[in-house]
This record gives sequence, structure tokens and C-alpha cells, in this order.
Amino acid sequence: MRNGNATSTSRPGFHTHSALRAPHSAFYISFSAMPVQPIAWSPNGAVRILDQRALPEARIERDLETVDDVADAIRTLQVRGAPLIGIAAAMGLVAALRPSRGARREAFLARLAELVAVLGATRPTAVNLRWALERMRRAAQDAPGDGGAIWDRLVAQAGAILEEDRAMCRRIGEAGLPLIPDGARVLTHCNAGALATGGIGTALAPVYVAHAAGRRVHVYVDETRPLLQGARLTAWELTEAGVPCTVLADAAAGALLRAKEVDVIVVGADRIAANGDFANKIGTYALAVLALHHEVPFYCAAPSSTIDPAVATGEGIPIEQRAPEEVTAFAGRRIAPPAAGVLNPAFDVTPARYVRAFITDRGVVQPPFGAGS
Amino acid sequence: MRNGNATSTSRPGFHTHSALRAPHSAFYISFSAMPVQPIAWSPNGAVRILDQRALPEARIERDLETVDDVADAIRTLQVRGAPLIGIAAAMGLVAALRPSRGARREAFLARLAELVAVLGATRPTAVNLRWALERMRRAAQDAPGDGGAIWDRLVAQAGAILEEDRAMCRRIGEAGLPLIPDGARVLTHCNAGALATGGIGTALAPVYVAHAAGRRVHVYVDETRPLLQGARLTAWELTEAGVPCTVLADAAAGALLRAKEVDVIVVGADRIAANGDFANKIGTYALAVLALHHEVPFYCAAPSSTIDPAVATGEGIPIEQRAPEEVTAFAGRRIAPPAAGVLNPAFDVTPARYVRAFITDRGVVQPPFGAGS
Repeated sequence: MRNGNATSTSRPGFHTHSALRAPHSAFYISFSAMPVQPIAWSPNGAVRILDQRALPEARIERDLETVDDVADAIRTLQVRGAPLIGIAAAMGLVAALRPSRGARREAFLARLAELVAVLGATRPTAVNLRWALERMRRAAQDAPGDGGAIWDRLVAQAGAILEEDRAMCRRIGEAGLPLIPDGARVLTHCNAGALATGGIGTALAPVYVAHAAGRRVHVYVDETRPLLQGARLTAWELTEAGVPCTVLADAAAGALLRAKEVDVIVVGADRIAANGDFANKIGTYALAVLALHHEVPFYCAAPSSTIDPAVATGEGIPIEQRAPEEVTAFAGRRIAPPAAGVLNPAFDVTPARYVRAFITDRGVVQPPFGAGS
Repeated sequence: MRNGNATSTSRPGFHTHSALRAPHSAFYISFSAMPVQPIAWSPNGAVRILDQRALPEARIERDLETVDDVADAIRTLQVRGAPLIGIAAAMGLVAALRPSRGARREAFLARLAELVAVLGATRPTAVNLRWALERMRRAAQDAPGDGGAIWDRLVAQAGAILEEDRAMCRRIGEAGLPLIPDGARVLTHCNAGALATGGIGTALAPVYVAHAAGRRVHVYVDETRPLLQGARLTAWELTEAGVPCTVLADAAAGALLRAKEVDVIVVGADRIAANGDFANKIGTYALAVLALHHEVPFYCAAPSSTIDPAVATGEGIPIEQRAPEEVTAFAGRRIAPPAAGVLNPAFDVTPARYVRAFITDRGVVQPPFGAGS
């Protein structure tokens, strides 16, 4: 079934608590405002995802069982965010290989290679997808025995990828905490939060950690056209977690910076080149220029797996061009004339020189990033 | 009737011709691709407007007869664009005062003052609105006689405002022509075209004149959130006139400039202060910063009536804050969570130092603009 099984619009199975706002005291630590969790195993071993296309209007979970389910969910952005795509692909491999458990070693590995190729072709820009698939492939190669034994190893490996991502998010948040003082006004673009990862996000991780530590934080959220991941996803997960936020049209960020209403800008990344140039949601580059012009610190937060040492500079990062309909139509209404051309790159590249620092699970660091970094 | 009378979704009464594309020769002058006309008198003397909220999906004309019709049409952006708002207010005064023609002088002038107050309060930023109303008020004051005679003078004055705007647009286009060489790639924001004026627009006027002169011009159109005047209106009127254009999300303009795909940026203005600071659609300022950073010439095109010598700098221009629903909902769908705050300024102010020059009906000029300029 191409879109997986829509299970519910209520909240079963997701560890979301209604927000308990932390009092504004530096001495109070709140663990209660746990951000939403966008991926989990279903009881019968399918990949259960929160369909991010439907938020914030509806909370729809889908169970993905086949490689087509998973590939379609990634391509259509039911599951999105560079780290989460990697996790979904790894977990999707496990679910899709379940019927092959009885196969002999060579047949199982051949089937695995097919599925890796399908999933690897879903989106070109994020490196985490290829990183996760390669890690799964190598785990399978290194495991002894036939299908059943290899599959068990893949289950463990997918679980490790998810758990490590959760831990990486936490470390990013802790590394970024000193950059988010009490009273900070943070501007972010797109969604690099819990909905983009297995944990508390990348760009939003320092915000969540600061909020949990009792610091007052206000997040300005670029709505992020065309698919509105800022308005629909970031604002939603922040309000669910009790973090105050304000949504604005992307084009309003300039006036906001000119009015000195922003103390710090934090964005995520879909791929970071060895020299520190990085690809992120279209619009990130314009924000970086505005930040430079207004002398507002501009940070990129990402797990180490987002660094692609095989790509020397941003010139080498492939940029996904998405369908014109994302720009020309909305909710079934046409918003541009048929005769007009459309430019719809999903990402842009921000050169490293615009970035004050990279907030990673290995601390707040500067490029270049070698193979061992 | 609050929204006027919706008359038709086809094309009666508007002078729109299907585009006749000019061959790419500098020797060929085309007058055939006449831009759309968004305002006219109806046969029975109402103000007939093209409802700009419905474009590009539907072409709906409305006949406005009362001051409430006209005020509502301006407030709800059925009629928008600084010059067109002024024209609509002037013509609206005429239509709304028709029933008062039999009144004695003092009663007629008292009623006029009431209507001027209602229309003047519809939108705060554009100066053309107040300029047109003041001009109508003074014409009435200076006219001798009772209601009927004064009304006749107002008919002539509203007609003059419309005709002068048409001529101003033409002169702006001719003044800007040298800035649009053959092959030019022009970036614009919002709609400062035929749909914003009585003629061929302000920012788009040089484009239309260059196109008519046989020059190849390509226009990149910022979609212009939240109300999408770029995608819905600018792209529509350009394609109707046969001018090639490409729509992009506002946030994509940075990457476009970085890729050196833009030769010149031209925007309109809603009010220009004496020192040359100007208010225009939210997002204009961010474009100006990007233009400076990428050394792309950035022009503001506007009729002289947009200059407000009573306002010394941009600090003195009031900025309209519009309803949050423009950002949080679209076509009946909620796109941001209810608990999130919203920032929705209709305009921002771009300081004069970002502007290469002002393209006006008095030529390509530099600030400061005195009372006599």
C-alpha cells in the first residue's frame, strides 16, 4: 500500500506530553516538556511515522512496511529532515527485509542491495541518507550467517542509529547552550527540530536545553515557503513543548533584524562540505547575508554525520529541484498563472565564511572538517 | 452591498489582449501587448474593479457604488497598490456622492468630508490615498455652486487623477528604459505593475516599455508572502502581456543573486520620505541588503505623488500591521498552530542609501526630495 496505513488522528503511541511550562528560574530544570517523537516501531514491526504533511491540522500516523512505502514517505516529505531521513531509511530497510529473513546469505544481501539503491535515490541533497544506508550495508556485510542472522544485526544497527541520533541531538543542545542566554531571541528557518531527528533536533536542540534549564527563550520562526515547514512544523513542536514562538513570512526577517529583535540565528544543515560550506533549506543563504549585514551571530547546528568529507566545497553538493506545483498551488488552489515559469530549488548553499561556528555533537567547532573530524 | 456586485468571471469590459509576442528585434515596436486595466467606470457610473483577491484563478469584476463598498474593497485588497488606491478613492468619492448631487453646497461638502474621513482611514501607509483625497477635497472647495456643480468638478478631477497616473506610468517606463538593456534579467517583489496603477505600472513600467521596444526581458517574480501578490498578480499580468517570467519563493532570491542570475532589481513604493527612505511591501528591505551584498543595482520606481515631503525620514512612515490570519491560514486551511504568535507587517522601510536611484515620472533622480520636487 503506497502511503502506508493511516492509523489515527489522535495521539496513541507518541510520547508527547502537554507542555508544562518551566517557571523562569535558572534553578528549575524541567524534563517534562519532551518534544514530539516523529518515528518509532509499530507493535508489529512496521516503521510508524507521524505524517508531517498533515501538521498542524491533523496528527496522522502511518505504518510503513514495504520499501515503496518508505521511499514514498521520504520523497513526499511525510518524513523529512536530514537526520530523520537517515533513520527512516535504516528502519525502513529492516521492515522491508522482514519477509526475506528466510533467505540464504547471498539472496538476502542481493535483496538488501536493491532496497538500498531504491531508498538512496529518493532525495539527493542530504548526506545522512547515504550515510545511514552505507552503515546498514556494511553491518550486513560484516554479519555472519544467513538472512535471519543478518536481519537481527540490521535491527540492532537501525536501533543504534536512532539512539545515537538522539544522543547527538542532546549533545548538540548542550554544546549550544552557552549561545542561548536567558532572554535570547532566536531566529530559525525551516524545521531542524524534534520533527527532523530522532531526538530534540539540531538547530532547536540548544533552545530546548535552554528552555529546560529555565531560561526564557523566544523563537522567531520563518514560515519557510514553499512547504511551510517553519509555520507548520517548527511552530507546532515549539508550542507543544511550551516554548514561546512567533511565525513570520520569510521576507519579514530582514525588517526584524533591522529592528534589532534577533540576538542569534540558528539553522540546520542537510550536507556540510569539508570546507564548511553547507546546504540547507532554500532561504538559509539570504538569512546568512542579512546576519552578516546586521552583525547577528549565525550558527549552523548539525550532527557529525551531516559532514561529507568527500565533498570539498559547496559547489560539489547536488541541489534537489522540486516540482513547480509546490510553488504554484496550495490546498488545491492555483496561486500562479500556468504560463509563468517556476524556480523551486529545495536548498541553497551558504559559504562557510558566513557561519560564526558549527554547533555539533563534538562541540562548537570551525571548519575545515577532515575525514576524521 | 458590502462587497459590491460580482459581475462576471469572463473578460467583459477590460482592455486585455492576448499577448502578441514581439520578435526579438530592436527595430520592432509593439503596442499590442497592452497590460490589463484594473479600474474603470461602469456604464451606470459605479467604480468597476477587477477583484484582485481572486486572481489568477478567476477574473471577477465588482461594481462599487457606496463608500462602504469602496472602503471595504481597499481594506480587503480587492483594490491594492499605492497609485491604484488613490485612484479608487477618488473615483469612489464620485460614485458615493452621486445621490447627494441635489444637496446644497454646505450639506454636500459636509458629506464629502465624511466620506474622505472614511476612505482615508482604510490603509495607513500609502501616501497616494491621502494625496488623492486631499486633491478631491480641494477641487470641491474651489468649485462654485451647489452639489450638482461640485460633483461635476469631482468627476473631472477623478478622471484627471486616473489619466495623470496613466501618463506618469508611461513616463516612469520611458525614464527607466535605459536601465533595462536587451537580455536583462529583472527581479521584482510584490506587484507594482498595471494592477497597482491606472497605467502600465511603476516598477514594471520600464519592463513593459523595453518589451514593447523589442528588447528581450525576463522577470523574476518574488511570490511575495503572505498574500502572494507576486505570484498571483505580477506573474499573471506579465504572462497576459507576453513578458516571460519566473516565479520563486521570496527566500530563493538570495540564491538567485548569488548565482548571478539577476542584472537589476526594481521595486515600487508606498511612501517615500523626503530623505529617500521608502516604505514598500514587506521583504523589500531584505532584497535591498542582498542587492548591496551582490552589487546588483537596486531601483525604486514610483510616481511623484508617492513622495511625502512632510515625512523627513523612514522613521516617520506608519507601518500597517495586518491580521495574523493572512499568515496562519490559506484557502481555509490552517498552516500554523493556534498557540504561535504571528508577526505580519504589510511593509518595511528601506533606507535611501540602499537605492541606486529613483525612477520617477520626472526622470531618474536622487534624494533628497524637497516640497517642490
